[in-house]
Amino acid sequence: MSERRSTAILGASGYIGQHFARLLADHPSFEVDVLAAGDRSAGQPLGDVWHLTEPPPATLGGRTLERTTPARLARQGVRVVFSALPSGTAGAFESECARRGIAVFSNAADHRMDPGVPLLVPEVNPTHLMLLDRRPRGRAPLVTNANCSTTGLVLGLAPVAPLLGIRTVHVATYQALSGAGHPGVPSLGIMDNVVPFISHEEEKMAEETDRILGRFARGRVAPASFPVLAHCARVAVRDGHLEAVTVEARRRPSLEELVAAWSSFDPLADDGLPTAPHPPVEVRPERDRPQPLKDRWAGSSPRSRGMTVVVGRIRWTPPYLRFFLLSHNAVRGGAGGSVLNAEIALDRGYLGAE
Amino acid sequence: MSERRSTAILGASGYIGQHFARLLADHPSFEVDVLAAGDRSAGQPLGDVWHLTEPPPATLGGRTLERTTPARLARQGVRVVFSALPSGTAGAFESECARRGIAVFSNAADHRMDPGVPLLVPEVNPTHLMLLDRRPRGRAPLVTNANCSTTGLVLGLAPVAPLLGIRTVHVATYQALSGAGHPGVPSLGIMDNVVPFISHEEEKMAEETDRILGRFARGRVAPASFPVLAHCARVAVRDGHLEAVTVEARRRPSLEELVAAWSSFDPLADDGLPTAPHPPVEVRPERDRPQPLKDRWAGSSPRSRGMTVVVGRIRWTPPYLRFFLLSHNAVRGGAGGSVLNAEIALDRGYLGAE
Amino acid sequence: MSERRSTAILGASGYIGQHFARLLADHPSFEVDVLAAGDRSAGQPLGDVWHLTEPPPATLGGRTLERTTPARLARQGVRVVFSALPSGTAGAFESECARRGIAVFSNAADHRMDPGVPLLVPEVNPTHLMLLDRRPRGRAPLVTNANCSTTGLVLGLAPVAPLLGIRTVHVATYQALSGAGHPGVPSLGIMDNVVPFISHEEEKMAEETDRILGRFARGRVAPASFPVLAHCARVAVRDGHLEAVTVEARRRPSLEELVAAWSSFDPLADDGLPTAPHPPVEVRPERDRPQPLKDRWAGSSPRSRGMTVVVGRIRWTPPYLRFFLLSHNAVRGGAGGSVLNAEIALDRGYLGAE
Amino acid sequence: MSERRSTAILGASGYIGQHFARLLADHPSFEVDVLAAGDRSAGQPLGDVWHLTEPPPATLGGRTLERTTPARLARQGVRVVFSALPSGTAGAFESECARRGIAVFSNAADHRMDPGVPLLVPEVNPTHLMLLDRRPRGRAPLVTNANCSTTGLVLGLAPVAPLLGIRTVHVATYQALSGAGHPGVPSLGIMDNVVPFISHEEEKMAEETDRILGRFARGRVAPASFPVLAHCARVAVRDGHLEAVTVEARRRPSLEELVAAWSSFDPLADDGLPTAPHPPVEVRPERDRPQPLKDRWAGSSPRSRGMTVVVGRIRWTPPYLRFFLLSHNAVRGGAGGSVLNAEIALDRGYLGAE
Repeated sequence: MSERRSTAILGASGYIGQHFARLLADHPSFEVDVLAAGDRSAGQPLGDVWHLTEPPPATLGGRTLERTTPARLARQGVRVVFSALPSGTAGAFESECARRGIAVFSNAADHRMDPGVPLLVPEVNPTHLMLLDRRPRGRAPLVTNANCSTTGLVLGLAPVAPLLGIRTVHVATYQALSGAGHPGVPSLGIMDNVVPFISHEEEKMAEETDRILGRFARGRVAPASFPVLAHCARVAVRDGHLEAVTVEARRRPSLEELVAAWSSFDPLADDGLPTAPHPPVEVRPERDRPQPLKDRWAGSSPRSRGMTVVVGRIRWTPPYLRFFLLSHNAVRGGAGGSVLNAEIALDRGYLGAE
Repeated sequence: MSERRSTAILGASGYIGQHFARLLADHPSFEVDVLAAGDRSAGQPLGDVWHLTEPPPATLGGRTLERTTPARLARQGVRVVFSALPSGTAGAFESECARRGIAVFSNAADHRMDPGVPLLVPEVNPTHLMLLDRRPRGRAPLVTNANCSTTGLVLGLAPVAPLLGIRTVHVATYQALSGAGHPGVPSLGIMDNVVPFISHEEEKMAEETDRILGRFARGRVAPASFPVLAHCARVAVRDGHLEAVTVEARRRPSLEELVAAWSSFDPLADDGLPTAPHPPVEVRPERDRPQPLKDRWAGSSPRSRGMTVVVGRIRWTPPYLRFFLLSHNAVRGGAGGSVLNAEIALDRGYLGAE
Repeated sequence: MSERRSTAILGASGYIGQHFARLLADHPSFEVDVLAAGDRSAGQPLGDVWHLTEPPPATLGGRTLERTTPARLARQGVRVVFSALPSGTAGAFESECARRGIAVFSNAADHRMDPGVPLLVPEVNPTHLMLLDRRPRGRAPLVTNANCSTTGLVLGLAPVAPLLGIRTVHVATYQALSGAGHPGVPSLGIMDNVVPFISHEEEKMAEETDRILGRFARGRVAPASFPVLAHCARVAVRDGHLEAVTVEARRRPSLEELVAAWSSFDPLADDGLPTAPHPPVEVRPERDRPQPLKDRWAGSSPRSRGMTVVVGRIRWTPPYLRFFLLSHNAVRGGAGGSVLNAEIALDRGYLGAE
Repeated sequence: MSERRSTAILGASGYIGQHFARLLADHPSFEVDVLAAGDRSAGQPLGDVWHLTEPPPATLGGRTLERTTPARLARQGVRVVFSALPSGTAGAFESECARRGIAVFSNAADHRMDPGVPLLVPEVNPTHLMLLDRRPRGRAPLVTNANCSTTGLVLGLAPVAPLLGIRTVHVATYQALSGAGHPGVPSLGIMDNVVPFISHEEEKMAEETDRILGRFARGRVAPASFPVLAHCARVAVRDGHLEAVTVEARRRPSLEELVAAWSSFDPLADDGLPTAPHPPVEVRPERDRPQPLKDRWAGSSPRSRGMTVVVGRIRWTPPYLRFFLLSHNAVRGGAGGSVLNAEIALDRGYLGAE
């Protein structure tokens, strides 16, 4: 597959980095040539620092993690990086990659609110990709995915937002342990417990949601202006963020219209992006779903496992619409989100010709 | 202590029933003479069917569970029953006890919305006890505690409600396993999971909250009329219901006024009720509290352990006040609530002279 | 695939029954025509009573569970049953099926110690199938798998037993929740706990191990005679029984010989049985494996996932050999074991011509 | 209480250090004057770094942690230190304290196998205190408790060892999370899992058990010589190490004799040591005990909570005696063990006159 872009994963020793490795191991458009990691892990094979429950991909498990720099990646001919760098470290490294012509698809928070950087959930705000049209000459695209809780929320809201006319969003989260990475949450602190605090999470949910649901016009994004009042808490669940959502609405569609809007939502239906599930939102009728244990791996194909957002327990007592939603925080809300971002960027021509 | 009222615990084999046994084993006003249970447990000593983590009380562990009837209890001279009967069974049995002159303090839902029955949280709506003044002659008082999630909520709201002028309450719960009793939730269904459904819980939170925060006037309770939009979910926590609360307010007190209102709230300060904590609401300043593991047994004395509601993570972005609260579902929200109800009823003269 | 045997699953509403459904949904030799269940579940589609984490198989999820009898199964032309019936119920039903010419592959304990019934783990004691040669004319084969803990143990012991000369086996188990079926273990009883008791498990491990490792000669099985001293305990793990094993040995092979014996053990290498993993025992070199979370789904192909027993932490201080082993209790130690039993019986000609 | 010895806790920010603080906060013989900690915690109040579930002791929660040295402790007049220092760091610091005349009671492993240091479990090997009689002039006593798993094991074995004549001990552990301290085990690594490896634990169980059960004669300890074949594993339990024990015996006492030996074992019955439970070993008759959740806090008084070892599921099939035992790893197997060591040392005159 000589036409695949030469690709590096930044932060490959971490939880999101390893999901990148899992998703890209046999990707039709990206070929992983570099697994970059920090001092502590560099020099070891990926398999030796592997944290995920499933085994490492056969093609990458024996590959050695290495320290690197943007300059070195450029010299090696790397064309695309997927970044799972920690916030703080990510910003400068990613900018430098883009400056050197390497496209960046990042899970880190550093650039999410940059005016020129698309904060992208492809099914929700694909037009925001057009922010890239104004980037300086010679600069490669830099695109970020959203915070893991935000991603689920905007996918749950987008299909019904036009029908409802959102006045206010109330959301409480039940967030999984893997959202804190590895080693992350100490077992003594979370077993038989809930911790009602995740640093900066509530602020991110508010500002990112408004940005993603904002309109692109005249070269910029005008954020939506409704308040998002979030409560974020950590629970003893391995993977899958559950969210309890209440929307205060301006309009009064019927329940049937709402369910139809969710079920028929599939804006990427005809794009042939490998990691996109169809539809991206699944409505479950049972009285006790979605559940992290049963719904986190929802998807419509092997490659899109964990990319579908599951909505359930819909209660409509106008002006309040209540529902629960679940998304896999490390897949749809993490590595998978950025892989899909890269796929749409490629499809829309932002990664240049091969 | 010959002056103690002869007392029975109904449903003594269950989780709430055993908390009744624990709290009443050496109570200054009530003497447990009967431990009533259904067919499956009757005939066994309490200790042999004991579910709680702490050992059974020395004075009751060897006592035999027995089947009984209201008539038999009356013949034995029982004056007070604490009911942990299952909803459905409870209604008729409790009514018959009251009719035969036995005072009833119940954790069951059956009579909670009866117009003549106080749905009582003593610090919040003590005036509702006056509903008892209109009961038929010869009939003993029947008083219920609230649903376990409602109890925490109204104790969190009551101190600040007058300052805020509540327009709407949004609440999402993280409810403990013991709320489902014993054997309750199967381990395969909840480990590594959250179940976003608890039968009738959201409806109870809405209607009970409005009733408890309603005004007693002219012999009846006029319920409050603000909507309570609840999401109820079960998490893998042994004891302690956590709730994420957002109040939409009409008025704009300062944050200091709100904290002061919570901290100074202690309407039973001078009543000397043995099980009442002082104050009943504790405000914690840490950024990650309250937590079930650390705060569920909050109280101001050995007898009031688990009776204090803990409030934390207060965020005031007018018109929205957000906070988390925690209460021990089986103590403050269960057996302890009814024991406190009995103590205030005794104090206010509703249990007659000894 | 008209040549597939018409097959019924007995006890299809339970945990093992649903693993049978998962494994047989697209099996090359058996075609599921009947999903039998008791009164509580009969009449419902399999999907509505589905307990497993993964979704029900597409071909069987909509199939309705039904009550049935051996006579009815025979009339319908069912040729093979897989039994996940509860012990007690299983015995008579299974015997009657065999009498009516329906081959039985059972996970139930009732017939395991019957002198004429193979208690079979195909890689370990395939010769015991010859017990079937003496069954009455017209009677179909009845074969049982072993207890879930026994199965892992004998697969761990068999490769090295000839080298060691077993004098005594000491084993302590860390058994998963699914071993108790559904609903099984209450969450309040096992969260933050270990329960050091599983009814009859230690006795089964002793007598079944000796039987399986016994010799078939002159038409009967002469059980091995070494003692198996077991401690069985339940831990808060979803699937996968871990066992700590110490063998007191008569002989002193080298460690290398032992590892080689495990690694090269593959007696079914050339049989082409679809569910057999190759090799059936995997030795892991890491210092902290096997682990239920990471190793329970070990296998060599999609169809044999969960069929491989993983051995690790091998310590050889003669005369004591210590190691840990892990096997998926519901697959290798349950449904998968019986499916493999059926495959070998078919291969060896015990299921007649099609 | 001016007669209390001035005392320091070393490593007060850790899990065992905080149990020391809890146990010594109001001790009749030791007065905590110094809470020593490393750079990361020094300068903070104990309450701000508190990890235990129960709240910090009122008298010590506000006390500031400080860096210190043996010289400084000596200048301050500290007479006794309780050490929860990490292995490696502990050795030199503790030696220097003893050299400067400060008695040391340590939970660390560094000095446990020193020929002149008592490795002490007071009910089991009190004569080993006499090792102190040979220490250099001017040197204060240095006494260590045993590894947490060893402590439970020797308390379970000691009462019956003389009756049995131990030939071999087989033991498999189910060890709690708190044994790894704080932050310790990552939640993603242990939830829904068992980890069959704890560094050096199996070796410690073997050598420490033989040393503690060895005879003191002619100024030294001659270790016992039976093999202890251990398997050590971590389970998802907060506190309380469960152990499955099989003893191969030389003699054949009756089961009644064995139970009587355990039940009547109370060598410190008349010593009046505040933290000693009476008896130190409790035999439970239920078929499913001991359990960590229900038995970890066993004790005979408020001060001895968590100091009793609970034995159950006794099965005697000569020559093999099987049973389970449970002990609180951080109390009996940690801080409480060393507090009891100090109490007996004081009682036997090794801490000098006040």
